[in-house]
Amino acid sequence: MSLATARMVPMANAIRALSMDAVQSANSGHPGMPMGMADVATVLWSEYLKHDPAVPDWADRDRFVLSAGHGSMLIYSLLHLTGYAAPTMEDIRNFRQIGSPCAGHPENFLLDGVEATTGPLGQGLAMGVGMAMAERHLNATFGDELVDHRTWVIAGDGCLMEGINHEAIGLAGHLKLGRMTVLWDDNNITIDGTTDLSTSEDIKARYEATGWHVVSCDGHDFDDIRRAIDEAIADDRPSLIACKTVIGKGSPNKQGTSATHGAPLGDDEIAAAREVLGWESAPFEIPEDVVSDWRGSTDRGVQARADWRNRLEQHGDRDEFLRRMAGDLPESFSLDGYIQSLIDEPQKVATRKASEMALAEINANLPDTIGGSADLTGSNNTKAGGIGPFTADDYSGRYVYYGIREFGMSAAMNGMALHGGVIPYGGTFLVFTDYCRAAIRLSALQQIRTVYVMTHDSIGLGEDGPTHQPIEHVQSLRMMPNLLVMRPADTVETAECWDIALRQKDRPTVLALTRQGLPQVRTEMAGENCSARGAYRVKSANADRKVILIATGSEVSLALECAARLEADGIGADVVSMVCTQLFDEQDDAYRADILPDVAPEQLLRVSIEAGTTFGWDRYTMTHGLRIGIDRFGASAPAGDLFEKFGLTADAIVPQIMNKLNG
Amino acid sequence: MSLATARMVPMANAIRALSMDAVQSANSGHPGMPMGMADVATVLWSEYLKHDPAVPDWADRDRFVLSAGHGSMLIYSLLHLTGYAAPTMEDIRNFRQIGSPCAGHPENFLLDGVEATTGPLGQGLAMGVGMAMAERHLNATFGDELVDHRTWVIAGDGCLMEGINHEAIGLAGHLKLGRMTVLWDDNNITIDGTTDLSTSEDIKARYEATGWHVVSCDGHDFDDIRRAIDEAIADDRPSLIACKTVIGKGSPNKQGTSATHGAPLGDDEIAAAREVLGWESAPFEIPEDVVSDWRGSTDRGVQARADWRNRLEQHGDRDEFLRRMAGDLPESFSLDGYIQSLIDEPQKVATRKASEMALAEINANLPDTIGGSADLTGSNNTKAGGIGPFTADDYSGRYVYYGIREFGMSAAMNGMALHGGVIPYGGTFLVFTDYCRAAIRLSALQQIRTVYVMTHDSIGLGEDGPTHQPIEHVQSLRMMPNLLVMRPADTVETAECWDIALRQKDRPTVLALTRQGLPQVRTEMAGENCSARGAYRVKSANADRKVILIATGSEVSLALECAARLEADGIGADVVSMVCTQLFDEQDDAYRADILPDVAPEQLLRVSIEAGTTFGWDRYTMTHGLRIGIDRFGASAPAGDLFEKFGLTADAIVPQIMNKLNG
Repeated sequence: MSLATARMVPMANAIRALSMDAVQSANSGHPGMPMGMADVATVLWSEYLKHDPAVPDWADRDRFVLSAGHGSMLIYSLLHLTGYAAPTMEDIRNFRQIGSPCAGHPENFLLDGVEATTGPLGQGLAMGVGMAMAERHLNATFGDELVDHRTWVIAGDGCLMEGINHEAIGLAGHLKLGRMTVLWDDNNITIDGTTDLSTSEDIKARYEATGWHVVSCDGHDFDDIRRAIDEAIADDRPSLIACKTVIGKGSPNKQGTSATHGAPLGDDEIAAAREVLGWESAPFEIPEDVVSDWRGSTDRGVQARADWRNRLEQHGDRDEFLRRMAGDLPESFSLDGYIQSLIDEPQKVATRKASEMALAEINANLPDTIGGSADLTGSNNTKAGGIGPFTADDYSGRYVYYGIREFGMSAAMNGMALHGGVIPYGGTFLVFTDYCRAAIRLSALQQIRTVYVMTHDSIGLGEDGPTHQPIEHVQSLRMMPNLLVMRPADTVETAECWDIALRQKDRPTVLALTRQGLPQVRTEMAGENCSARGAYRVKSANADRKVILIATGSEVSLALECAARLEADGIGADVVSMVCTQLFDEQDDAYRADILPDVAPEQLLRVSIEAGTTFGWDRYTMTHGLRIGIDRFGASAPAGDLFEKFGLTADAIVPQIMNKLNG
Repeated sequence: MSLATARMVPMANAIRALSMDAVQSANSGHPGMPMGMADVATVLWSEYLKHDPAVPDWADRDRFVLSAGHGSMLIYSLLHLTGYAAPTMEDIRNFRQIGSPCAGHPENFLLDGVEATTGPLGQGLAMGVGMAMAERHLNATFGDELVDHRTWVIAGDGCLMEGINHEAIGLAGHLKLGRMTVLWDDNNITIDGTTDLSTSEDIKARYEATGWHVVSCDGHDFDDIRRAIDEAIADDRPSLIACKTVIGKGSPNKQGTSATHGAPLGDDEIAAAREVLGWESAPFEIPEDVVSDWRGSTDRGVQARADWRNRLEQHGDRDEFLRRMAGDLPESFSLDGYIQSLIDEPQKVATRKASEMALAEINANLPDTIGGSADLTGSNNTKAGGIGPFTADDYSGRYVYYGIREFGMSAAMNGMALHGGVIPYGGTFLVFTDYCRAAIRLSALQQIRTVYVMTHDSIGLGEDGPTHQPIEHVQSLRMMPNLLVMRPADTVETAECWDIALRQKDRPTVLALTRQGLPQVRTEMAGENCSARGAYRVKSANADRKVILIATGSEVSLALECAARLEADGIGADVVSMVCTQLFDEQDDAYRADILPDVAPEQLLRVSIEAGTTFGWDRYTMTHGLRIGIDRFGASAPAGDLFEKFGLTADAIVPQIMNKLNG
């Protein structure tokens, strides 16, 4: 039921006109890509994409990701033309202006129908892989009746050149995600000029080598585009469609050059393009028949959604499916009993092991989780609770062997979280947050529940040395907006942190966990998730309070040791476990003042102890407090020797406190 | 002049024995890789590698990088056996112990002959690409007589799976770096198990698609290894040699499994391996004839170095070549005159543009620089001073079109800096430090001069929105050890920062530069590089001093505006430009106390102003100071609207200061 080419052409030109005009009006933006891919997008959205603009959160809709996010006017045009409630034409007029949902790059939290925030290149495609994984997993869980959709990605040369592309397509190829299709805007142009300035790669051969099906088409020939998409659908591998396009297509003097990539075309050139395209409408006006053709194209999706709704209502798993897609935990889910058992029977284990113990409880009782590790399963302790591998042969599995692909893993987890219905977590060493930091930032910006299980969180990992020892990492992640960074001290806090992380529907969590064993510091205070306060008193001063020791993770037990020595000398010392600075900062004034009273250091000295940078700890110690930490790179040696070398022992710390008190 | 197999076998087994024994003694480490690659390494080092152990810094030596750095015992064994001054056998005995140069992963700053710090996977190979680029550039500059060597990399499956591999080999293939060879330890094993757990890729086909020559060999057959290396040398493309090996080769019960990857074999298994290998020496003892064969293998290199030395002494460019390899700037090099001219003629430009202006001076007068950008040349303003492209056809060029490969670019720059003879700089948007942060960390850890030109450094970039707007980046980089993070305020400071960066032989620099135009704040104080102090007073209080405004980059002019308003109300205000916190922290107490006197806020209020996170600014404002910044993600709008939205205007700031003063 394809429309005749004569009716398709103006549908595509509507995208071109809106893109030219919006960029011109904003005097900023990227017209080249939407104009170049307008024909491909028109075929995809009007004939293939399964969606219902009236119900943008329909669970079984196809997912569409504009990985080349700078071409944002493409998706804004498509959403508007197909009849989504937003963006309105007024929003499009205000492209890139304050308050408009039509931001410079598409933001998932501003517009329904924008499935992912894109712009940081390569990540959209990699999130698409995660969406396709979630789709297959939910299909294996709930069946074709409820879950049976595709993932479509539009990517540019930049997305394909980024390193994450290699990781993402390696994972997708290995997992045979045949319901994923990448439409590559093969226009031979990057910002700096033609692609041959910087690459000589045979992209199609590379994709084939990575387990992908590859097909090419003329990106300006509707029939050829249809043929290529049909071939992609027919193949059971993930597909790359190389769409040969002309960037800025329709701009007579600039098309095919990098001049159209990231700047307005200019009024004269837009006038000339209107000539060439035969587009006679005023800026931001679309002829009624074109609007009508675009709106009519969604009939398929509307019907499909109605059919699906009927199937859902009669489905035995209806409530469970809806619960999972809503992102709610089962009402029965609770770790309280488990945490009580930990308090009752103290034990000395590494927090990575404590995380494994918590996961055994969680995975057995919460079917939503999909775990994994970037080839450090035994070190990150991420496989627990009897979950089996997620493989091309068995998508019902809940454990992903991500391979040595930290960034790809993180982006895939973001894609899963965006898709919904699953709660992804994955592990690597904390120091390798540097490899996936750009994806962690997108977890935070997109307001999604991705859980990072980051082990080996300090010099306490020992012999692997400075390349593997985080120094600045925990602190530097704490300043990322909307991210919870948690560094628990023992089994109890680790379980509490997991409980908190799972209940964050709109923000991600980084768990920083030790390699080395830690004594249990929490042997009381059951019945309340103390970590949820961000910081709390693990021990109150016995003698007259002179000191507050503020520590995290492995250093909480060290702080307790210091406190014991101080108390023995008649110096009262609180010990505060600062599990999560962000959550502490969110507490009310009274609570914060109770834990950290605003008193001059002569009366009450605050001391921070963390086996990482001291930069920024002034925030909690106050200026004249004492900051114990490590402000250089680590070294290779057994952990005990390193804690001694870097002065993270009671023997080294207590005298400094005494000096300060007496100073 | 190959030795007979009967003499090669014990040479290789010496590596195996040392690796088994050192890991066992440390009770920690990775025996599998050195044992598996012992035969390949023996052929390479004894018959091909051009080196002279007595002169490890010989400029024309081949570069060898152990990208799979966890197999560090391989390089320690090779250095010891071929007669480098270090490691001694005592050092090897103390593998992974405190103070031993035989750290868990190879560290370039601990041992001559370790060309790069490796361990973070994929980066060794990518640094090898940079070394090969530097070699070709210096060859084009100084000719075959002085520069004519190869780059060899040993890489594992992890290095090949990491995203950076794609970027690195894409660059190397495009640039036709035919003197680079990667020996892939093709053992089908990763930490989690066999590689088919996580990948189905045809690696050889992928490399071929990326412009590489690929050859395979039996990694345990000396003749076959020689054949493959000869083929690699003969081909003018970069080569991948797939060395089919058995991980842990020689361990009868564990070889070929992930059990040998990262754990000691155990005493019993080591005894069994000694049987199998016919190795009768005690731990840490090598038979004299084996030592003799290893030492004899370096005769080629010793002779080559003597010949080279003769050529150098007679070479017209001798002094210049030695200067460049020593990393010294020409004595005549100075930006003083240029900076004076800036002070004389104030102008309003973006600091990215100011950087371009400085580079025009630098590149014209300092032949050492090799610039580039990750496909943002026109945005980063990195091409200046008349330098031409570095291409496969012309390696004398000094500008690299890195493509959309931020991480690969950064690692390549590290490789160039490690190679010596060149000073690499390269640009992308500051927010994309998240893509290359792991390489920035290796710049710092390796103590090398890599200069990162990071533009678009705040919400001041405007319409591109939150994905492109740094918030936490500047501050989070400041806490990385041994890294200079500089945020200059105008043309003068930008030139000063460039001068400082170029003179850091042992640490990298990140320049954070604006997209938007900035008024010139420095119109006096010529003759001294004020930025070298890290922070200095741009303006002293006129009225009675009550406030110190501490600002960086684009906010220095804003601080001056605030100060003018305060002074108009009779409130004296200093304005301090905090160009580089690290350099300021290194000043003596007297200087720091002069700039930021330790006085109670009631007497002297400190206010920080930076268009980024306020987290950590307590360090300079003191607890009861005022911190103006942005603690959430940005937004898409014109820059002026955003500064207003986020309260970074004098109208918004001055009342807060007044409140605080009156509070």
